Amino acid sequence: MENFPLNKVVRLIEPGPVVMVSTLQQGHANLMTMGFHMMMQHDPPLIGAIVGPWDHSYHALRANKECVIAIPGVDLIDKVVDIGNCSGNEVDKFARFGFTPRKAKHVAPPLVVECLANIECRVADMQLVDQYDFFILEAVQAWINPHRKEQRTFHHKGDGTFSVSGRTLNRQDRMVRWKQFQD
Amino acid sequence: MENFPLNKVVRLIEPGPVVMVSTLQQGHANLMTMGFHMMMQHDPPLIGAIVGPWDHSYHALRANKECVIAIPGVDLIDKVVDIGNCSGNEVDKFARFGFTPRKAKHVAPPLVVECLANIECRVADMQLVDQYDFFILEAVQAWINPHRKEQRTFHHKGDGTFSVSGRTLNRQDRMVRWKQFQD
Repeated sequence: MENFPLNKVVRLIEPGPVVMVSTLQQGHANLMTMGFHMMMQHDPPLIGAIVGPWDHSYHALRANKECVIAIPGVDLIDKVVDIGNCSGNEVDKFARFGFTPRKAKHVAPPLVVECLANIECRVADMQLVDQYDFFILEAVQAWINPHRKEQRTFHHKGDGTFSVSGRTLNRQDRMVRWKQFQD
Repeated sequence: MENFPLNKVVRLIEPGPVVMVSTLQQGHANLMTMGFHMMMQHDPPLIGAIVGPWDHSYHALRANKECVIAIPGVDLIDKVVDIGNCSGNEVDKFARFGFTPRKAKHVAPPLVVECLANIECRVADMQLVDQYDFFILEAVQAWINPHRKEQRTFHHKGDGTFSVSGRTLNRQDRMVRWKQFQD
């Protein structure tokens, strides 16, 4: 994994991929699958995320206020869907699904080696957690796997179907107001 | 345009497409382009969105607390990018870019006839507007254009490049915890 600049984390999150959230509680790492998230601010990078009491990870995130957002390639879709359909209460998800944890740099929860990218996050704001299960996370370190063969992400269409990211269209020449984000 | 059930609005937003926001202030309709948004709750559908003071639409949204989220097909990408690179202060965007406004059912801002889908929204919560420019919107009516030929969306990769939504993978059989969202 290679270091990825924090002010470019927007490039990983804004397209809206399905992600996994890695947490750690009392020595147990857990994974959940997440589709309700967004970029809120470029730099320092803030990410909004819904993690609810129905998620085992919710309690770890509330308690320890750290997580890793891992972005899987589409080759991992079946494992990622299955991780979203069982509970960390019952299953050691890293072991069951064959994901490899790796020590993060700034947070306690582990990175997920097999993913396209990993974003180490700290909870920055919990004002809307009680009312909406809405956490604001600040990215404090990011990593990418640029040599990974499959770089396509997948996006939940809300009903158990997923669209795979397709070809890239470059419109940088038209983005005259936002040139600072193209470096 | 055909009515689309509110409890299925998640299917339009969760994949993370670039959208346009239609607002109305003092009789003037405006459009902006938006990539920082998310689904927050299925039903009633809540959508989180960053609209900042740098956006002309911000003032309309704060004042009138209504908008329409319009989801463009990839055939409209150049217009949508250009709309994100000029200001409603200076330009009548519906006229300049050839979009057709249509009266909405429950809100004052107009629908955008050419888009794949339109979601009429009311501002539901402004607690985090001053601090983060974060609006929570409740969808109150949705419309789709199912007979439109180009149904692919596009997703901002944060740097002026965009990925086009590709093929759909069906994993409904594995979504055992979330069957209620498949009807």
